[in-house]
Amino acid sequence: MSGWLVVAGLGPGAEAMITPEVTAALAQATDVLGYIPYVARVAPRAGLTLHPSDNREELDRAQHALALAAAGGRVVIVSSGDPGVFAMASALFEALEARPDLYGLEIRILPGITAMLAAAAAAGAPLGHDFCCLNLSDNLKPWALIETRLRLAAAADLAMAFYNPRSRARPEGFARALDLLREVCGPDRLITFARAVSTPAQEIRTVTLAAATPGMADMRTVVLLGNSQTRRVGPWVYTPRSAP
Amino acid sequence: MSGWLVVAGLGPGAEAMITPEVTAALAQATDVLGYIPYVARVAPRAGLTLHPSDNREELDRAQHALALAAAGGRVVIVSSGDPGVFAMASALFEALEARPDLYGLEIRILPGITAMLAAAAAAGAPLGHDFCCLNLSDNLKPWALIETRLRLAAAADLAMAFYNPRSRARPEGFARALDLLREVCGPDRLITFARAVSTPAQEIRTVTLAAATPGMADMRTVVLLGNSQTRRVGPWVYTPRSAP
Repeated sequence: MSGWLVVAGLGPGAEAMITPEVTAALAQATDVLGYIPYVARVAPRAGLTLHPSDNREELDRAQHALALAAAGGRVVIVSSGDPGVFAMASALFEALEARPDLYGLEIRILPGITAMLAAAAAAGAPLGHDFCCLNLSDNLKPWALIETRLRLAAAADLAMAFYNPRSRARPEGFARALDLLREVCGPDRLITFARAVSTPAQEIRTVTLAAATPGMADMRTVVLLGNSQTRRVGPWVYTPRSAP
Repeated sequence: MSGWLVVAGLGPGAEAMITPEVTAALAQATDVLGYIPYVARVAPRAGLTLHPSDNREELDRAQHALALAAAGGRVVIVSSGDPGVFAMASALFEALEARPDLYGLEIRILPGITAMLAAAAAAGAPLGHDFCCLNLSDNLKPWALIETRLRLAAAADLAMAFYNPRSRARPEGFARALDLLREVCGPDRLITFARAVSTPAQEIRTVTLAAATPGMADMRTVVLLGNSQTRRVGPWVYTPRSAP
């Protein structure tokens, strides 16, 4: 098999956050696959076929990419952020699991700047101590498990990053999550809403849990909750390196 | 104040993983500060003063950087990986807290590829579902808190990334962590040791907790523990996107 398959992270939005190894892979590609707005970030050129597809078609996309690479293509699946954080890398390996004939295919996962770290950098350093990273969508797991994880993470006094805080299908989930967090973390805990990070539309807002409302998050928002030590310094918010 | 201060992530080691915005900031800098091996990654040039310093001097380094920027310097503090993950960003804000006169200073935190995400990419997608990121060093927190967090994270069935698994000062800590994890996660749970990620010396090894030994980690290793669903597919290890 002479083809190869790369899953590449495009970072949160800014061109200046795309790593040179991702840029190099895209320059060699014959085929680029991905969710429509991510493929739209790749410049068309002769010899390159773009294959944009809809959200929630991750497995089909992964199967398609495997087939193209097995046929000799130089194939890049693009993800926003980092491909290993709630993105296409896991979907690819799920598809590969059904194709033992392709276990020898050349596959590389190229990391990218994931949204929570770009958001943390824009806000200061709210993830500067132990933290967890939770997907608040209940598309692929039961809502009860999300609540269990929130309670245990709060008991561990971890800072938290939330991906997909509000899904179109179940907008009430994030309201329930905020209620739960206010109950277990108290009203004064700091929470940062980071929207469209690293793009011209970037908005960063830090409030207390008492002041947080579900409408502060949308599909383009990553949410960062501080731990018990997280505080403001000047215009910034940060979590100290030490814990009592 | 005409100076500025940037805290920049150099990524885990490969030049091709340094973002263009970090490269651009380094090209404009008059002063670069950081831990000796990280400053050694910055090429000397006319007009640039390099200020390497020892580990565990983070606060002194941050204060020095603030003073240089306040005096008009274009100052970059370099971190390995991402500056917001167990690195210099929190130390900077801790130093800034004592200098309200400098709250108006231009400060930017530039994210980088953090070790756990480069390691996950090299191994497959072991962090492809909810996960936590814990610093196993007890330099800045009590060991009992580390054990509490390990137990709660296991109860939440989170995948886990461990930074600083073994400290020179307390090499027995990681052995205790492995014993605890074997007890609460069982012997078959997959664990990945990723050493010198993205450098020519990179070594990636995935074993079961039953087969894991403390000596598999050293100061250059980041450790990734799977959740209950994590499995092998061909030469890779991945965590499915869904949870039961």
